[in-house]
Amino acid sequence: MNNNPARGFTVSEFEARLRRVQKQMAQKNIAGILLMTEPEIRYFSGFLTQFWQSPTRPWFLFVPADKKPIAVIPEIGSALMHTTWIDDIRTWGAPAPKDDGISLLLDLLDPLSKQGAKLGIMKGHETSLRMPLGDYERLLTGLPGIEIVDATDILRSLRMVKSPAEIEKIAHICGIASRTFEQASEIFFKGQPLAEAFRAFRMECLAQGADDVPYLAGGIGQGGYRDIISPPSLRPLQSGDILMFDTGATFDGYFCDFDRNFALDQADELSRRAHDTLWRATEAGLAAARPGTTCRELFQAMQNVISEMDIQGGEVGRYGHGLGMQLTEQPSHAVFDETVLAENMVITLEPSLNYGDGLIMVHEENIVVQNGAPRLLSERAIQELPVICGS
Amino acid sequence: MNNNPARGFTVSEFEARLRRVQKQMAQKNIAGILLMTEPEIRYFSGFLTQFWQSPTRPWFLFVPADKKPIAVIPEIGSALMHTTWIDDIRTWGAPAPKDDGISLLLDLLDPLSKQGAKLGIMKGHETSLRMPLGDYERLLTGLPGIEIVDATDILRSLRMVKSPAEIEKIAHICGIASRTFEQASEIFFKGQPLAEAFRAFRMECLAQGADDVPYLAGGIGQGGYRDIISPPSLRPLQSGDILMFDTGATFDGYFCDFDRNFALDQADELSRRAHDTLWRATEAGLAAARPGTTCRELFQAMQNVISEMDIQGGEVGRYGHGLGMQLTEQPSHAVFDETVLAENMVITLEPSLNYGDGLIMVHEENIVVQNGAPRLLSERAIQELPVICGS
Repeated sequence: MNNNPARGFTVSEFEARLRRVQKQMAQKNIAGILLMTEPEIRYFSGFLTQFWQSPTRPWFLFVPADKKPIAVIPEIGSALMHTTWIDDIRTWGAPAPKDDGISLLLDLLDPLSKQGAKLGIMKGHETSLRMPLGDYERLLTGLPGIEIVDATDILRSLRMVKSPAEIEKIAHICGIASRTFEQASEIFFKGQPLAEAFRAFRMECLAQGADDVPYLAGGIGQGGYRDIISPPSLRPLQSGDILMFDTGATFDGYFCDFDRNFALDQADELSRRAHDTLWRATEAGLAAARPGTTCRELFQAMQNVISEMDIQGGEVGRYGHGLGMQLTEQPSHAVFDETVLAENMVITLEPSLNYGDGLIMVHEENIVVQNGAPRLLSERAIQELPVICGS
Repeated sequence: MNNNPARGFTVSEFEARLRRVQKQMAQKNIAGILLMTEPEIRYFSGFLTQFWQSPTRPWFLFVPADKKPIAVIPEIGSALMHTTWIDDIRTWGAPAPKDDGISLLLDLLDPLSKQGAKLGIMKGHETSLRMPLGDYERLLTGLPGIEIVDATDILRSLRMVKSPAEIEKIAHICGIASRTFEQASEIFFKGQPLAEAFRAFRMECLAQGADDVPYLAGGIGQGGYRDIISPPSLRPLQSGDILMFDTGATFDGYFCDFDRNFALDQADELSRRAHDTLWRATEAGLAAARPGTTCRELFQAMQNVISEMDIQGGEVGRYGHGLGMQLTEQPSHAVFDETVLAENMVITLEPSLNYGDGLIMVHEENIVVQNGAPRLLSERAIQELPVICGS
């Protein structure tokens, strides 16, 4: 594993991100953006930790219009934040239910309130408020002059387009997951409870070099599966099963997100046809994914193939999405999304098919949009539904 | 692994949870509680999936005053939700940025608005708003008669006390992590990059039976470590290192959360003294953790030992917390928390020590509060800092 990409980013990468956001802030006359979610704080600071698993403490990063970001964080994160390029780090002894960072934020933002300035907060699609709503309401009460504006589109436009260093990390984890899927015949066997198959897949993915496998879902069923987000049952793998594994593994905080279908011992005709249809829909997506294409058009290109066979449509809601610091990011390949694809966007192509008697099949690849044909990050699936002999 | 606890819960478990919440709702004249966070939705429905990794879609569970909960969820979750005890399941084709469940919620909650009823939302300490803030504001605008009340304390009081089935799951994952730590001398070795030590620990934990290891943090340093929430570096393990691994592994959606310290080849005097102090502080915590003790008193019992040696205090903010469906849950063992311990609360004891030149050491056990001495779920650490020979 000597060809691993370097961990972290150069300071110039963070400087470029800051320049890009401040340019948009200037255009919109926004005096600062208050961030509180993991990917956004990491995007501008490099602060990477699994400690976000604990819901106890809020974390804040304030991006001013013309200075470096300022961290307002619990004391427990101080040592780690001091290893990043951020130098203005304000901490408090958290948890402190009566004042979990609110006084520090009021001090920081009071000048904006006095100026009647605009403060950006993410409040749009795919966001959440990662602090207690009660504290947010108290904060606003203390800043009567501030005008809150929605900064979702600004952050979305920045994060959708990846840097070469980001693409390298995503490519690396996609390679790891591809090599893991290549081991399918070795790690899955008849009689193996699905939960054990999950465990074996996770361990192989780690052995191949993943830091973690935060997402692993699967589908299983005789002649097809009906659900794609379930945790594993203890049902043993059987001859004639169609098995789908969908994985989000990580390297240095960046995700892959693709799935593979397998038939155990034998593939029935309907499943083979469904797989072929999905594979060709993905080919249509690969042909359509060019700078200048909208996500709606990309959806339609795949839908034209899916509609040959689909009996229902719409259950998944889209045929793929952005990918990077999160398992799923903006944009969505869906009729509602007019986002124009641009060079260096990393996206999934994920057509899904409702067929037979309540069956669903999904198929997914990860690509980088570039001039000409997109760059495949996942090892392209074969057209024919692969049959593995679990013996 | 034939003695694994059963996965999921009986319907009677969910019925009991519902009775308990509705009793409190009646006392406070609350007509319904709208939940949107993973643990709370799972607590009342049994809906368990890693699909929450995707931030794209909001999910809702409405708990009425006198009926079974009602799920308002994206169509992609329909099949899985239909495997739970919930039978009123309302879905929409998500994502749908213009109406991500809001119309369905307005239909559901309009009668409450017309009655001027109280709707519970979690907006207190340790909560977040797991839907776009903009959508929440739109929802409130559409429900002018509703009075929003904070339901945090109700949920907190329920979830803090665990059922026998919940305790069995937590005990099981604590046993798995304990057996993993027992393998320390086998899986760690001198010259091993810390990132590879993390990978080896994760794989061993899975091999021992964990479903997943969502949280793994560590500290490392010659003669002690300075940070406890960092991701792994490539620094190789060296003789004289003090190494700390803190793990949150899961079984069937329930966490363990404890750590272990090791010295590589040799333990310096100061590190040995720090470990001994932390171990005795934990003993004091074990002696104090009885039904009727407050979390403040529990903190103080540990602090009395820690203060023999601590030079700073307060960095971690508390000496342990609740444990269960999340890595950290309420309550907090801290001066601000007057929660009275009760039978069947599952908590961590996690004293921390600031010593030497900017060093920190942590130590953690997982226990069930019961009449008499608490039940240890983690295999109790030995008093003396263990020395492993990584060769």
